[in-house]
Amino acid sequence: MTYCLGIVLDTGLLLASDSRSNAGVDQIYLVKKLDIFDDAADRMIAVLSAGNLATTQSVLALLRAGIGGDIGERDLHRAPSMFAVSQIVGDTLRDVIARDGEHVVAHGGDPSASFLVAGQIRGDRHRLFQIYSAGNFVEASERTPFVQIGETKYGKPILDRALSSSTPLEQAALLALISFDATIRSNLSVEAPIDMLHYEADSFSAANLMRFERDHPYWRDLRARYSDGLMKLVAGLPVPPQQSEAS
Amino acid sequence: MTYCLGIVLDTGLLLASDSRSNAGVDQIYLVKKLDIFDDAADRMIAVLSAGNLATTQSVLALLRAGIGGDIGERDLHRAPSMFAVSQIVGDTLRDVIARDGEHVVAHGGDPSASFLVAGQIRGDRHRLFQIYSAGNFVEASERTPFVQIGETKYGKPILDRALSSSTPLEQAALLALISFDATIRSNLSVEAPIDMLHYEADSFSAANLMRFERDHPYWRDLRARYSDGLMKLVAGLPVPPQQSEAS
Repeated sequence: MTYCLGIVLDTGLLLASDSRSNAGVDQIYLVKKLDIFDDAADRMIAVLSAGNLATTQSVLALLRAGIGGDIGERDLHRAPSMFAVSQIVGDTLRDVIARDGEHVVAHGGDPSASFLVAGQIRGDRHRLFQIYSAGNFVEASERTPFVQIGETKYGKPILDRALSSSTPLEQAALLALISFDATIRSNLSVEAPIDMLHYEADSFSAANLMRFERDHPYWRDLRARYSDGLMKLVAGLPVPPQQSEAS
Repeated sequence: MTYCLGIVLDTGLLLASDSRSNAGVDQIYLVKKLDIFDDAADRMIAVLSAGNLATTQSVLALLRAGIGGDIGERDLHRAPSMFAVSQIVGDTLRDVIARDGEHVVAHGGDPSASFLVAGQIRGDRHRLFQIYSAGNFVEASERTPFVQIGETKYGKPILDRALSSSTPLEQAALLALISFDATIRSNLSVEAPIDMLHYEADSFSAANLMRFERDHPYWRDLRARYSDGLMKLVAGLPVPPQQSEAS
């Protein structure tokens, strides 16, 4: 499994992924699921991956191979918009599944994959898309400032409660780490390290990339403080009425 | 969808269910999913239902019809243990699916259902079982003091963090309501009222049954206090380090 989270804020993007890849529980790997294409000056593009690892690796390899070619049809560096970038990712995903899908299914596997595509191209604002396994996609917006792929449910309540598009970038990073902690606690197949990119709007830079191992001092401290605070909060709440006092 | 939660504590049982039943999002009902069999003096038995409503209603009707009959083979009032009660529920479920299953599948439906079976029979401690759609079952224990059926994920993190078998009954009731609130916020197809039974060990009584509508003053106040407290907690936590300070 996987958990990837993308947040689009007024002031930028916050992107995070875990590192666990598994086939069953007895065949596990650590992999990178947050890929960055930032070597063109006019754009920063990040792609986060979930689903079949062979599928996602093929898509990423083809995206890299498409850059700087003669035709430029699927060149992330020449795509005119983040919408066009998302189309390229979706089309590439369709090609990989068309090539490998039936063979994977014949062996009892699931070839499907999904992506978050986020970034900014000069002349437009920063944007965030979720690419479905069918290759189509939706865009995150002010009303739904975050999108998730993989194991999405355990980490959603804290975001539903606390996140809006006006949340500052560093506060969103904090909420993202709490969301990942909730997911890791409940699903064995989601695991640190967490890769996390802070992207400030109009910076066109992916330099602010953090990596949180399980024992990273900040994250360890955050988990302890959050748990303690939550226990104190719950202990201070009045307990429910008993018997049939309800209307 | 549905969310039912059972908690087995040192001092008793806490059982809760929502009331939403739906076929798609345009055909919704409110139903009772927490059924109590407490008219025998030596036992208290509760059954919580999730899944196909026709299946669960048939199972409950057959369980009621089985009480006090001549044969007594599937009589919840004569079952010698909660284990035997769970077997009766599982066998009845198998019968219903054997009768209706293929017809439901032929019409594109899913006949499956699952149950929580909880209670106490004099001479044994209070116990809690989860019945799978196959009719087999597992028992909750000290190491895993709660079981869930239906939409289980959104409401699990708070229980993983805060609940243990030594938690007092009224504190477990508070955590259950927070767990239901998280689920209702994220899944349209889970909805109040919440039926909640506090069962004190050795009381053999189901009198302590509460019903929480969305606008129940206690629950409304709890949601507000919890949300405010969580926002304050998060606002007081240090934000993550930036750039590559990570090891």
